Amino acid sequence: MFKKILIANRGEIALRVIRTCREMGIKTVAVYSTADKDSLHVKFANEAVCIGKPQSADSYLNIPHIMAAAEITNADAIHPGYGFLAENAKFSQICADHGIKFIGPTPAMINGMGDKITAKETMIKAGVPVVPGGESLLESVAEAKSLAKEIGYPVILKATAGGGGKGMRVVFEESEIEKAYTNARAEAGASFKNDGVYMEKFVEEPRHIEIQIAGDQYGTVAHLSERDCSIQRRHQKLVEESPSPFMDPELRRKMGEAAIKAASAINYESVGTIEFLVDKHKNFYFMEMNTRIQVEHCVTEEVINFDLIKEQIKIAAGHPISGRNYEPQLHAIECRINAEDPYNDFRPSPGRITVLHQPGGHGVRVDSHAYAGYVIPPYYDSMIGKLITMAQTREEAIDTMHRALSEYIIEGIKTTIPFHLQLMKNEDFRKGNFTTKFLEGFTME
Amino acid sequence: MFKKILIANRGEIALRVIRTCREMGIKTVAVYSTADKDSLHVKFANEAVCIGKPQSADSYLNIPHIMAAAEITNADAIHPGYGFLAENAKFSQICADHGIKFIGPTPAMINGMGDKITAKETMIKAGVPVVPGGESLLESVAEAKSLAKEIGYPVILKATAGGGGKGMRVVFEESEIEKAYTNARAEAGASFKNDGVYMEKFVEEPRHIEIQIAGDQYGTVAHLSERDCSIQRRHQKLVEESPSPFMDPELRRKMGEAAIKAASAINYESVGTIEFLVDKHKNFYFMEMNTRIQVEHCVTEEVINFDLIKEQIKIAAGHPISGRNYEPQLHAIECRINAEDPYNDFRPSPGRITVLHQPGGHGVRVDSHAYAGYVIPPYYDSMIGKLITMAQTREEAIDTMHRALSEYIIEGIKTTIPFHLQLMKNEDFRKGNFTTKFLEGFTME
Repeated sequence: MFKKILIANRGEIALRVIRTCREMGIKTVAVYSTADKDSLHVKFANEAVCIGKPQSADSYLNIPHIMAAAEITNADAIHPGYGFLAENAKFSQICADHGIKFIGPTPAMINGMGDKITAKETMIKAGVPVVPGGESLLESVAEAKSLAKEIGYPVILKATAGGGGKGMRVVFEESEIEKAYTNARAEAGASFKNDGVYMEKFVEEPRHIEIQIAGDQYGTVAHLSERDCSIQRRHQKLVEESPSPFMDPELRRKMGEAAIKAASAINYESVGTIEFLVDKHKNFYFMEMNTRIQVEHCVTEEVINFDLIKEQIKIAAGHPISGRNYEPQLHAIECRINAEDPYNDFRPSPGRITVLHQPGGHGVRVDSHAYAGYVIPPYYDSMIGKLITMAQTREEAIDTMHRALSEYIIEGIKTTIPFHLQLMKNEDFRKGNFTTKFLEGFTME
Repeated sequence: MFKKILIANRGEIALRVIRTCREMGIKTVAVYSTADKDSLHVKFANEAVCIGKPQSADSYLNIPHIMAAAEITNADAIHPGYGFLAENAKFSQICADHGIKFIGPTPAMINGMGDKITAKETMIKAGVPVVPGGESLLESVAEAKSLAKEIGYPVILKATAGGGGKGMRVVFEESEIEKAYTNARAEAGASFKNDGVYMEKFVEEPRHIEIQIAGDQYGTVAHLSERDCSIQRRHQKLVEESPSPFMDPELRRKMGEAAIKAASAINYESVGTIEFLVDKHKNFYFMEMNTRIQVEHCVTEEVINFDLIKEQIKIAAGHPISGRNYEPQLHAIECRINAEDPYNDFRPSPGRITVLHQPGGHGVRVDSHAYAGYVIPPYYDSMIGKLITMAQTREEAIDTMHRALSEYIIEGIKTTIPFHLQLMKNEDFRKGNFTTKFLEGFTME
């Protein structure tokens, strides 16, 4: 086992890794920018090295500084956390070149999933469903009709140069296709001076459901059940839960198998996540693979009572995975506590936390690097903590979340707590009746 | 279900009950002494009523004041917590007389277990093992020999007026009994001017293992697995865990059945605990029944993921119990965080908490009414919180506990945290190799 791990990250995930290292008896090295000198990860690590100025490029993305810190402190492994260098194949390679274990996949695995086109091709070869279509531009109505028949209705036409819905048309039956095709091209041409359009399967009432996986150096891959991350604002996840209220045992089995196929296709080693879109008919399509630990890994930890960071470290040290496909035993929900003002379009709200009181009690987990007096720097993401609740049923987990949010006191800054309090009382949310579009129709009271 | 519950208690247990009430959508009324006006249970309840001066007799034990608070606020039930009036049959009766539901057993059940002699007789009738002997004073060596034969060696002779080990003799075989009997009587006579001695079975290497039970109004009783509370200092529990490292499935089944017999013998209704002494041969003996929720209920909640306060409230409202005999799914440990100085004979250390930072992360639960700035009043018990950790194995739960203790920052007062940190590293403790005498041989480094 490693003797000393450097954590090339900050905030709650750095603290998260330190916690598991302490439990495993592994020494830790924190790195920090000058803006983070008073951060909790710096206080709780065994050693701490300043790696540069506040801007990420000068510190948390500065590979030479991080490698120097690892060499000075004689760390034998580096945990990248999420974000920053976590999915940087070059960094993984440099670690290997220096004889320092990168706690994550090899550069080849990161590259294999980092490029969307390569990843999609790999998935098709492996027999993992992807959203059909999208391979080439359409040249005629006839071609559009033929492809739509192949893919199956509904389909969506998208401008290749597009964005913002321009040149986009959803088509539900063949009689509509000629008009839709003509209009989409015209609109695309007018909007982008490029009238190229392509066709994809239209995913109806999409949910974002992802499967946690773990693979070891010996070719074994297991899935560790799913997370539903459909509650998103501008593609930023705000709430995650497991199991998905949309899931059934048959779909879990099928998605679990597909996730194992996906990870096995690149001989994946470490913990990782296969993200799928799932439509209202329970068809699911590969979106992408995250070759790292995710923010929302905690809900999986709670529903199967399993430390994913410990598993990740053990895999990196050459241990076999625990090796079974887990079923959720409980229901867990995570709310991201961000320093943002939900009454003002979620505008960031950095500054000093003057008063802090964290919730506690049965079914409550808090992962946060915040403390009373902590000054949130404006340079990084605005997440200051994660509140996770778990219970035997989804309804109870939501009720516990509402209770825990109601006793979470953070003064001095604005936070997303008022948003989450309202969400937990929302009837559609409570019924599990939501898609990735849910928050587009949600307004704060 | 109840609409409004008054909590006739303070500190962490008052907060604990408020939390579950919030999750169940039940309004709460806090009562408080003038010393507790800034307490968290006062802040977090829907209403709060001052019931008197700091001394317990004037406030938390003042039945007329508490009943007046319940009537003013129109509470339809009272939760007594633990301590104070929790096992006061008269209070339970007065609640009934006023048409306010006492969340706990009836006066007859409390009385049936409150008196040790009656309780022992009831247990013998019900077929629950009790420590043999102790019924009457010995009149002669012959009688002593005869009784010892009946009880089985080893036996212990105790002075009826005794205490502090005076007039006490452990006898392992018949050849020793004459001398022991003579000496014990002489020593008792010299020490207490009363040379009466009685004989009991000597419980070798005793452990305190208790069984959590729940019974409803319909005569169903279930056991919810055990807690090992052997780590005690002067009969005060300091650390509790579940499962007991001494337990095996067969012993759990037998003790669970005995606990159900014990509770059924008095038609017990509510949650409660049957405390046993268990000797090194895995013989177990009824000690007493606690007809209330216990401080250490949290470890059971974590190993079976079950809210015992919710169960208690539901039973009081006439619901049937969930009704199965649970097996521990995890391992959980609780450390009592007391405002006491472990380097100074655990002397109480009341005062102002100047800095507070609570631990978090996977496998950590904090139940505490403390906050930064809180002044611990000198009038009540010194417990300011409970730290509970849980994991798949006992070893991991201990490691998580050590990690969580190491990041628990409480400044301004002395606490038991340094004691717990040392205990978690103690080899005998880690091996599960301890009895109720363990702390007699433990010194702080």
